[in-house]
Amino acid sequence: MGITLAYAAHSATTPLKPFSYNRRSLDPNDVLIAIRYCGVCHSDLHMVRNEWGQTIYPIVPGHEIVGEVLEVGSAVRTFKPGDMAGVGCMVDSCRACPECKEGLEQYCQNGMTLTYNSPDKHTGGVTYGGYSTHIVVDQNFTLRIPPNLDLAATAPLLCAGITTYSPLRHWGVGKGSHIGIVGLGGLGHMALKLAHAFGAHTTLFTTSIGKAEDARRLGADAVVVSKNAEEMKAYDNSLDFILDTAGASHSLDHYLPLLKRDGSLCLIGLPEHGHPSPNIGTLIFKRRQIAGSLIGGIRETQEMLDFCAAHNIVSDIELIPIQKINEAYERMLKSDVRYRFVIDLGSLQ
Amino acid sequence: MGITLAYAAHSATTPLKPFSYNRRSLDPNDVLIAIRYCGVCHSDLHMVRNEWGQTIYPIVPGHEIVGEVLEVGSAVRTFKPGDMAGVGCMVDSCRACPECKEGLEQYCQNGMTLTYNSPDKHTGGVTYGGYSTHIVVDQNFTLRIPPNLDLAATAPLLCAGITTYSPLRHWGVGKGSHIGIVGLGGLGHMALKLAHAFGAHTTLFTTSIGKAEDARRLGADAVVVSKNAEEMKAYDNSLDFILDTAGASHSLDHYLPLLKRDGSLCLIGLPEHGHPSPNIGTLIFKRRQIAGSLIGGIRETQEMLDFCAAHNIVSDIELIPIQKINEAYERMLKSDVRYRFVIDLGSLQ
Repeated sequence: MGITLAYAAHSATTPLKPFSYNRRSLDPNDVLIAIRYCGVCHSDLHMVRNEWGQTIYPIVPGHEIVGEVLEVGSAVRTFKPGDMAGVGCMVDSCRACPECKEGLEQYCQNGMTLTYNSPDKHTGGVTYGGYSTHIVVDQNFTLRIPPNLDLAATAPLLCAGITTYSPLRHWGVGKGSHIGIVGLGGLGHMALKLAHAFGAHTTLFTTSIGKAEDARRLGADAVVVSKNAEEMKAYDNSLDFILDTAGASHSLDHYLPLLKRDGSLCLIGLPEHGHPSPNIGTLIFKRRQIAGSLIGGIRETQEMLDFCAAHNIVSDIELIPIQKINEAYERMLKSDVRYRFVIDLGSLQ
Repeated sequence: MGITLAYAAHSATTPLKPFSYNRRSLDPNDVLIAIRYCGVCHSDLHMVRNEWGQTIYPIVPGHEIVGEVLEVGSAVRTFKPGDMAGVGCMVDSCRACPECKEGLEQYCQNGMTLTYNSPDKHTGGVTYGGYSTHIVVDQNFTLRIPPNLDLAATAPLLCAGITTYSPLRHWGVGKGSHIGIVGLGGLGHMALKLAHAFGAHTTLFTTSIGKAEDARRLGADAVVVSKNAEEMKAYDNSLDFILDTAGASHSLDHYLPLLKRDGSLCLIGLPEHGHPSPNIGTLIFKRRQIAGSLIGGIRETQEMLDFCAAHNIVSDIELIPIQKINEAYERMLKSDVRYRFVIDLGSLQ
């Protein structure tokens, strides 16, 4: 038990403000982490404003968490006080279903426990996330943070990193692949860095021509302004895979024709109101596919962190004190961030 | 050159009526077939009524063609007069692109030549289909018809057969698979027969309870009335693959939740007005996919015919004289056919 300072929203229409709660005592498998940094994910905003209709208030968002281990339970062997540790979108799952046994806890048949706004098996309450000074997490859902990476810029890897890493790996993106990335935000900029590191030829599709230079710096081999029909047309039937990171509703029919036969368009953003209905003929006439993908499993998240350490990949961030979180949400809505806000939890002490 | 008797539509709103044209002389690779039977596909009706907006009139539909070889060109070795031969949806393709070289001519990058309503490379006109007494086709797009099958009931294999066979094979349906088939019409009844022969556990989803008995006879292990939410719910997360054969617009959100993680819903029907926009969350939260598939290549079509011969699979048909074709269209629109009309071209002599 111990007081945890946090920021919480108490309704869909009121700003986040200081909050505190008693965190649980450590079970034998638990790790207590003093949170140093927490990334600000677009889903934090969706959840705070109840845009997916499932928010329980008060809500303490945050699932891109890095910090220092303060204390461990009696059965914990892989972490010790002083270690750097991370927590992503999940803190538990059933651990018994085929998905969990395959290391795909994010697809747990009995429902994973999200880092925030999920029923908390330990307390009977609701889980609270990383906009806070501390978190207690089972060691099996705690990640090792490689020592060579900038700690604040590592935080977004726990969601934006794994959410893009997992589908790129699942669809076999690598040397010789020609792929597209739709959108250059928190997810898109990680997708560019990772796809580049995998050796793929990568084209960024963006609505803002102003992002072209940045996109190239981040790893894009080409940049296409998606409003330019002629530029788009030149990509017809040319891509093996498209990772669509856009969070707002948009027409998939702009992108599906760019796929080769048997190519997949994978969606990782979940818009509040869905996308316009895609043209079925575009799928049928080239055996194309529309898919979705959700974060990644714990084992794969560790693999991603180790890959990023080996390739010196972190997020491009803007560090903010937690007192600026409401302002950061407004700027995020205007895509006014390059490319991820990260909260310095030192500001909450 | 020779007069070919046929039935053609001259506009989107007028019935099909007798028509005749001069067929081309045989090139060295050509086969002249005296058509015995031609299946009636729902796309014939779509095309005749210009529901896909690309019809050139007069149109002679028909792409489920079986008949007897009358004459062959000087370079033809695989067919001789007296052989039974078939023609499906395509009569040519570029033969040079990667798709053609892989035997996937239906996805030809330069566009296959459809059996009807396509620019005809030989004549400079438009191709005419199987609602006619004769057809001249390149030997490479002519299929061998196994001798042991009922000839009239074999005709629908050339489109309905291959259109269901190809995706079932592509998605690896076989022993141990749990799959769903949506819709029990011309395509659906072939899908049931084939999936059963492949050894899959197959559930038919239908809107009409009256089809349950038939579905079981055709190979379904279970039948679910798709309007019954409770019955549907019992199938949540249970299917590896769903082949959606429904030709009318419908909600994919009824079926997507029935797929296991990584499952695919494959669409082979092309509705005039698309489907309502699917829920993206249903894709994301189980890495599910929506795909399309188009007929099959020539090599695979021959493989399908040989498979059907080995397993004694043909279509369930109602034989009609060509004079009843307009009436057959009306009945097809009411799903009043079990399960495919086949035209007896003897009626046209």
